[in-house]
Amino acid sequence: MSMNPCDIISKKRDGGELSELEIRDFVKGVVDGSFADYQTAALLMAIYLNGMEDRETLALTLAMAKSGDTLDLSDIPGVKADKHSTGGVGDTTSLILVPLVAACGVKMAKMSGRGLGFTGGTLDKLEAIPGMRIDASIENFKKQVQKIGCAIIGQTAELAPADKTLYALRDVTATVNCLPLVVSSILSKKMAAGCDVVVLDVKNGSGALMDTPEKSRKLAEMMVRIGNMSGKRFSALITSMDQPLGNYIGNALEVEEAIDVLAGRTEGDLKTVALTLGAHILRNAEVAPDVQTGITMLEEKIANGEGLKLFGEMIEAQGGNRRVVEDTGLLPKAPFSVELRADREGYVARMQTDDIGNAAKLLGAGRERKTDVLDLSVGIVMNVRLGDAVRRGDLLATLHVGEKSDKIGAFNLLKRSIIIGDEKPEIKPLIQAVIE
Amino acid sequence: MSMNPCDIISKKRDGGELSELEIRDFVKGVVDGSFADYQTAALLMAIYLNGMEDRETLALTLAMAKSGDTLDLSDIPGVKADKHSTGGVGDTTSLILVPLVAACGVKMAKMSGRGLGFTGGTLDKLEAIPGMRIDASIENFKKQVQKIGCAIIGQTAELAPADKTLYALRDVTATVNCLPLVVSSILSKKMAAGCDVVVLDVKNGSGALMDTPEKSRKLAEMMVRIGNMSGKRFSALITSMDQPLGNYIGNALEVEEAIDVLAGRTEGDLKTVALTLGAHILRNAEVAPDVQTGITMLEEKIANGEGLKLFGEMIEAQGGNRRVVEDTGLLPKAPFSVELRADREGYVARMQTDDIGNAAKLLGAGRERKTDVLDLSVGIVMNVRLGDAVRRGDLLATLHVGEKSDKIGAFNLLKRSIIIGDEKPEIKPLIQAVIE
Repeated sequence: MSMNPCDIISKKRDGGELSELEIRDFVKGVVDGSFADYQTAALLMAIYLNGMEDRETLALTLAMAKSGDTLDLSDIPGVKADKHSTGGVGDTTSLILVPLVAACGVKMAKMSGRGLGFTGGTLDKLEAIPGMRIDASIENFKKQVQKIGCAIIGQTAELAPADKTLYALRDVTATVNCLPLVVSSILSKKMAAGCDVVVLDVKNGSGALMDTPEKSRKLAEMMVRIGNMSGKRFSALITSMDQPLGNYIGNALEVEEAIDVLAGRTEGDLKTVALTLGAHILRNAEVAPDVQTGITMLEEKIANGEGLKLFGEMIEAQGGNRRVVEDTGLLPKAPFSVELRADREGYVARMQTDDIGNAAKLLGAGRERKTDVLDLSVGIVMNVRLGDAVRRGDLLATLHVGEKSDKIGAFNLLKRSIIIGDEKPEIKPLIQAVIE
Repeated sequence: MSMNPCDIISKKRDGGELSELEIRDFVKGVVDGSFADYQTAALLMAIYLNGMEDRETLALTLAMAKSGDTLDLSDIPGVKADKHSTGGVGDTTSLILVPLVAACGVKMAKMSGRGLGFTGGTLDKLEAIPGMRIDASIENFKKQVQKIGCAIIGQTAELAPADKTLYALRDVTATVNCLPLVVSSILSKKMAAGCDVVVLDVKNGSGALMDTPEKSRKLAEMMVRIGNMSGKRFSALITSMDQPLGNYIGNALEVEEAIDVLAGRTEGDLKTVALTLGAHILRNAEVAPDVQTGITMLEEKIANGEGLKLFGEMIEAQGGNRRVVEDTGLLPKAPFSVELRADREGYVARMQTDDIGNAAKLLGAGRERKTDVLDLSVGIVMNVRLGDAVRRGDLLATLHVGEKSDKIGAFNLLKRSIIIGDEKPEIKPLIQAVIE
């Protein structure tokens, strides 16, 4: 027998701890409508204000994970791993770490959502590769993971539908920014996707979900704690979004930079974060004894070309032109470019990362609404990083502009987002914390 | 321009004080639908948990009062007064004080709701009088008040429709029992009804809205504070519901007891509370210099028969048979009666007042659902009061039973609700506090 919604709401209203049964009844009620929207909204506000114990957050996560389809990857031999990022600018670590980790023997079975954002999601980036398809059936997805070791597809199964309903309500009732709700929302989809090892990249800074270092840290800690309570092996990094992670921002542009990293042509923060995340997977999967050894293993897969080769195989398996990994000239190119140059001497003192992302969106690289059509060729290539000394007239960034881009809006926003000052700034560490 | 619902919700969520403008936008949104039910529910829970300052409660009350029709009684000369009770068992003070106060020269313009409850509301009681109508138009209501000094009718105008929507949502989201919401709900209808003086009877005890003396006191204090802030003159009594107020419980039965009091045949708690409430009206209307003088004035209207006569005139003005005030035999009578007698010697130590009310409801005197049809003749006549000494076999109460009454259920519940013990109990004062 299910409980009365009012009994569950009053218990949380009065600061009580909900039982696993009550939480399952709630999630079931959200899906079957026996919890009306207004009752769910009242409970979400009570959770926002009175919080949840870890046991409740775990129960909520698992109930949401079970609210729709769940993937069973147990018939694929070996450890299956997944990765999640809270979303940043110039962040294409997935395209780098998926083939590298798979080349080390850990299966990467990644199902991505599309979502809104500064630039497209991983799926949009993959679609910049000529012919590439991301709509495989679950059966073919699993076959590909088993055969070549990795796959990245769109969310064809209906994973955690309760999260969709809850998120839509949180969005219109001022209950988005609540840790147990954020954690259960992210983790429920990861739980439903069936992997054994999950690594999380929690961004901190102006382009990040959480607006203070304390909140980012609490989010990361809670996700790892709840994830590990579920019996899976979770790690999280907290990484800086004080500037774009890579120098390329935009869909085809980010694929190009990922290929450059896999080919060993590009060093820097993007590679550092991708390899550190990958090394945590290898360590959690017990393929590497520690993270440092994991990084060395991944570096070898760059040096010997196996990572790039496997990326080509994944592209081919998903219908794309694998020659793109040798010739990034095959990716779509924007017809025009505009240069942004320094109007004074000094140091790159600060970047407003979220607005750099918004500038890319104005060019057409990201969506404002779900129905917006992207221009996969457009974006921004950054020429400077925080702390660089510049002289008047030095190139700061190049805008790759398409026919429909808001060129002037993007240029002005980008200009305002790169602040040049007299003093060399202190730069926070790229990887600010590791939660295991 | 109205605000975004989420901005208003977040402000209260974070413990802020809503401005008058924000509260007006909210109430407007509740009525016109621009605040969705789930947004209202989230805000109600935030108010429940973070409270409201008096200024907010006043703004909410006034915005709700203005959300529909408002009565303008200013063209009726003199002071117009109203009375509200939070609802108890055997509580028919309105029928007593309305004609008595009007006989002293203060206009009583009372518009009642029907509602759910142990027994019917004031309207149901009036309908027990043969021919009596409670559906006068506002115009005729005002004419009657002007001509004879008093009227009690049903709520024909749509007073404070926002309260209807908010109450329905509170009822299903566990946000009923929240002081600023209770206060604004009760007062908004009183404000819309246009009187200058209002006296409130807040019940305390097992048959009461608030379950502790502290809560009853806080409710009474807040209602008087907010009422006076609005420029009207409010007083409140906190009165005991440790036993039924009068000895007659049921619709026709309560009319009979009211007539008995007006005729000077019956003394006791019902009369004491009715006259004290009435005296506060006289004092607040500046017709009596103090409450004690007010009580003396009302006693005189009983002694000289003017109160009873005016009750008869009011009945006649509303289409009823005024002879009922001389001959209560004209009221509907239940066909059967059952006696409850003491099964041991001792003192009446405790009464479970709410269950005595529920027993009357089982007989058919009150509604469980809005659509239930009442039997106006049935009910309970109590023969004992708290502290009375009884011997085995003494009559405790008589059940007046109709064809459709749940006679056995009512008998058993009533039996369990009158507890006889060895010790004479301490009895709390009838009027526990006066808030002015």
